[in-house]
Amino acid sequence: MGKKQVVVGIDIGGTNTILGFVDREGNILAEDKIKTSYYDEVEVFIAALYEKIMVAQQKIDFEVEIIGYGIGAPMGNINKGTIEYAADLPWKGIIPLADIFKRHTDLPVIVTNDANAAAVGEMIYGGARGMKNFVVITLGTGLGSGFVVDGKLVYGHDGFAGEIGHTAIRPGESNRDCGCGRKGCLETYVSATGIKRTLLKIMADSIEPSSLRKYSFEELDAKMIHDAALEGDAIAVRAFEHTGRMLGFKLADVVAHTNPEAIFLFGGLALAKDLIFEPTKRYMELNLLSIYKGKVKLLESELSTQNAAVLGASSLVWSIKEHK
Amino acid sequence: MGKKQVVVGIDIGGTNTILGFVDREGNILAEDKIKTSYYDEVEVFIAALYEKIMVAQQKIDFEVEIIGYGIGAPMGNINKGTIEYAADLPWKGIIPLADIFKRHTDLPVIVTNDANAAAVGEMIYGGARGMKNFVVITLGTGLGSGFVVDGKLVYGHDGFAGEIGHTAIRPGESNRDCGCGRKGCLETYVSATGIKRTLLKIMADSIEPSSLRKYSFEELDAKMIHDAALEGDAIAVRAFEHTGRMLGFKLADVVAHTNPEAIFLFGGLALAKDLIFEPTKRYMELNLLSIYKGKVKLLESELSTQNAAVLGASSLVWSIKEHK
Repeated sequence: MGKKQVVVGIDIGGTNTILGFVDREGNILAEDKIKTSYYDEVEVFIAALYEKIMVAQQKIDFEVEIIGYGIGAPMGNINKGTIEYAADLPWKGIIPLADIFKRHTDLPVIVTNDANAAAVGEMIYGGARGMKNFVVITLGTGLGSGFVVDGKLVYGHDGFAGEIGHTAIRPGESNRDCGCGRKGCLETYVSATGIKRTLLKIMADSIEPSSLRKYSFEELDAKMIHDAALEGDAIAVRAFEHTGRMLGFKLADVVAHTNPEAIFLFGGLALAKDLIFEPTKRYMELNLLSIYKGKVKLLESELSTQNAAVLGASSLVWSIKEHK
Repeated sequence: MGKKQVVVGIDIGGTNTILGFVDREGNILAEDKIKTSYYDEVEVFIAALYEKIMVAQQKIDFEVEIIGYGIGAPMGNINKGTIEYAADLPWKGIIPLADIFKRHTDLPVIVTNDANAAAVGEMIYGGARGMKNFVVITLGTGLGSGFVVDGKLVYGHDGFAGEIGHTAIRPGESNRDCGCGRKGCLETYVSATGIKRTLLKIMADSIEPSSLRKYSFEELDAKMIHDAALEGDAIAVRAFEHTGRMLGFKLADVVAHTNPEAIFLFGGLALAKDLIFEPTKRYMELNLLSIYKGKVKLLESELSTQNAAVLGASSLVWSIKEHK
């Protein structure tokens, strides 16, 4: 028997980049990470990342054979192997990530959007096993989305399908500024940052007391709002209610586009469970056309926050290998 | 050589139902119509429709062999062969249309959404030939949509994908009533009826003179607004501007979902050409995320208004036959 084949799954985030050796069954045999924000130059970052991978392989006595590299990143484009204008990464403009990585290896290197990677991961290892039509929404610093139609990930003509974090809540200019340069994008409401903005808005409008009034915007995070809401803090509960209202409203649009069987919520805000799921479901149903009402499941991702993106990025290489 | 094979394409509309004998190349060899609104009972309607088809076959001396029936209808569901809660048809609730039709024939009968049929027609005979990812928007009494992803029509889990006419412009209750029972749906702005509502709103708000002020809501139609706009009527021009603003805003959402190569506009309002295309394109671009800007074509359907739905409905039977 030969060595166990693995794909290296890589999740490039704004702060950290996580890598894992993933076998066909989705077991992670080795894992490591590297600080993304430390590297101003992408070439140096990739060289350091590749070095980490080689060291990790050494640590397990070369018991694995790497067959490819799957990389998930914000604004990752599978057609071109690029990252394009990613607001949260240190490298600006269009970055030919796959080409830079291929200076180190002759194996297949696939770059894709991190939310698309999560959708593939959910389909192969998570709660979407057996589903043909579903959507994964990733709730982190921003809001990402991955669409699966008829058992296949939707890439679209330019490889940029699934950016509903940047659809606007309403027409016009009187909306929240978004990091993308536009106004009123869904992720300015529904994300770790979005719920902080909503909390401050409610604090500004109301006179209700709240344990969170003593913290600055910079000190606050989504977890603190979550904890306060669990303790019955009225303003924190209302922040979740409004976040669910905005998400439910736009998920009704998602249903009217591709009529999925289920929508999975993944990432930080999804860990708030009922606090976010209940209002999201309620407002989604309120906004659905009658033919869709009561039919679309709103589910928690079955992949743990830690491993999902790595699993997803690696599973993409496995799935492409199998379609050959 | 045997008889020429044809599919009977049928387009069920609120007022008229059109049928055509369509060959593999998209030629319509015979055509007829029947008044939908005359029939309170769907069984009687189908019997009369089938009779019309038989008579049409007789008229061309049985020179064709019918191989199947493709029916496009509002809220048509391809999975179940039903029409469900179609606001504009005389038959309410869930109608098992394919089953009723099959009492008359053993040949394949396919029922689908009329906008989905138009998308398939555009792909096989129209401007979307060679395209893998595109969207067709049908502008009639309402607004329909059909999505093609990776060369295949998107049906979704329940067969109801593509109802963006019923996505709302903004959250909340202070919106226009829609025939579907909800508020602020896109089709309350962007449709033959929607532009009339917008015109009345502008007349109410402004004091500008207009040649259209002498007509009642019931007397007005989209063509009259079109003609007035061509003559420079400021209120009519503003009605088109606002219609394009709402459509462009929501088409930016469409792009963020499936990243199509092109969006085709089809039907009555699309005949207004630049009057509708120019503001729609402008507001779509304004609302697009930078990675999409300047990349998505907004095109006129290449199928004539008269034949497109019949062609589309029939081509669906041809395409299913070929995928077998």
